[in-house]
Amino acid sequence: MLTSGCCAPLVAEPVGEAEAAELARVFKALGDPIRVRLLSLIGAHDGGRVAGEGVCVCELTGAFAVTAPTISHHLKVLREAALIDSQRRGTWVYYWIVPATLKRLTGVLALPETLTADLR
Amino acid sequence: MLTSGCCAPLVAEPVGEAEAAELARVFKALGDPIRVRLLSLIGAHDGGRVAGEGVCVCELTGAFAVTAPTISHHLKVLREAALIDSQRRGTWVYYWIVPATLKRLTGVLALPETLTADLR
Repeated sequence: MLTSGCCAPLVAEPVGEAEAAELARVFKALGDPIRVRLLSLIGAHDGGRVAGEGVCVCELTGAFAVTAPTISHHLKVLREAALIDSQRRGTWVYYWIVPATLKRLTGVLALPETLTADLR
Repeated sequence: MLTSGCCAPLVAEPVGEAEAAELARVFKALGDPIRVRLLSLIGAHDGGRVAGEGVCVCELTGAFAVTAPTISHHLKVLREAALIDSQRRGTWVYYWIVPATLKRLTGVLALPETLTADLR
């Protein structure tokens, strides 16, 4: 789960099959609008940036026009891709982002400066 | 197609529904190992970094154990997500990466420095 190697940009040299499969799994987890919004809601919340603290799922479900079990399903997909982690405390589950996974993605999508210089 | 707004990190403030849908579409295009490898092969090739030049599809198909039409399908998905662009010249189609789209993705996945300081 994105543990092998680290962060070499895709455009620096052709990525191997195993790493491509790992990356595709994480990108696929982000390939849904509700999951993109959930990751954003968690990461934009102060508690969601602190491992072991987190955002209560009870604060997340209200933002969506889908049922709580559907939200739980999407959160599970994000968790299985190591984009977020979670902990049950009492009645509720709390979620926080996993910075290492996001950093890995920005690393693999990075471009040489020569290609981005005129993009501002 | 990733044209509205630009590059605000997902974790800076909750992303809106329209932008989430656009981003999910691009991430979904990356949610397949063959497409991750194709993007990497194109971006790691000198020609694939130059708009209007590109890498010949004839150089890409040999790297995969799938048929040429399957590769063409995956290239189409990447092109529709604006991750690559293409041009037909004579018999072959040539592909190059679209730096603006990759830069947008690294922008939205970016983290505050406080969260990445101890990840090296």
